[in-house]
Amino acid sequence: MTVPQPPRLFLRILFGDAAMLGPGKAQLLEGIRDTGSISAAGRAMGMSYKRAWSLVEEMNAAFAEPLVASARGGAGGGGAALTPAGERVLQLYQAVTARAAEAGAAEIAQLQAMLRHGDMSGGK
Amino acid sequence: MTVPQPPRLFLRILFGDAAMLGPGKAQLLEGIRDTGSISAAGRAMGMSYKRAWSLVEEMNAAFAEPLVASARGGAGGGGAALTPAGERVLQLYQAVTARAAEAGAAEIAQLQAMLRHGDMSGGK
Repeated sequence: MTVPQPPRLFLRILFGDAAMLGPGKAQLLEGIRDTGSISAAGRAMGMSYKRAWSLVEEMNAAFAEPLVASARGGAGGGGAALTPAGERVLQLYQAVTARAAEAGAAEIAQLQAMLRHGDMSGGK
Repeated sequence: MTVPQPPRLFLRILFGDAAMLGPGKAQLLEGIRDTGSISAAGRAMGMSYKRAWSLVEEMNAAFAEPLVASARGGAGGGGAALTPAGERVLQLYQAVTARAAEAGAAEIAQLQAMLRHGDMSGGK
């Protein structure tokens, strides 16, 4: 018996036609908060150092205050941390996700019931 | 003066660890409903015929009833249409999106206000 996985909702918010906030950036912010390192946070997501840095730079440029503060260089590289703005953005993104999942729960359950294996009664 | 674009929310719903419904599939369903053709719907999204067919087959396999009915072959190819299940799935997906945007509006507005150009006061 496998434990049935409940449906999961992933959100991407597009601001105007430039700034974008989605599950990848949110997970990266979480990782930086938890590990104190941009490269460790990226690595945990299977992301190159370069890619993780580029996403951080993109976020820092898109918001009025930087979301991630980092000290580059030194042996082992400098550490990184979320700024208060970074904590706030992560919190708001997570709140949108939670509210969306709650607000759409009835429709999501109806979609799930229409799946071939919508009953989730064990099996694959 | 450019007209400021309001934030837009894109949703991806992951059912268990297999079936997935997101903006691409929803837009493809819309296109098929509107054009009566899988290839025309895919083309409008810059998607190859093969890719559009593969997404339709994936959706038809994931749900208990097919979402798209199609008549293949013939000169110019057969037409395609949403089945009642397809109409329903599209409707439910759009309802989740609308409810999510409404439920998260306050947080999305707060995120937008934190952007460097969050005031959206003209310009790029």
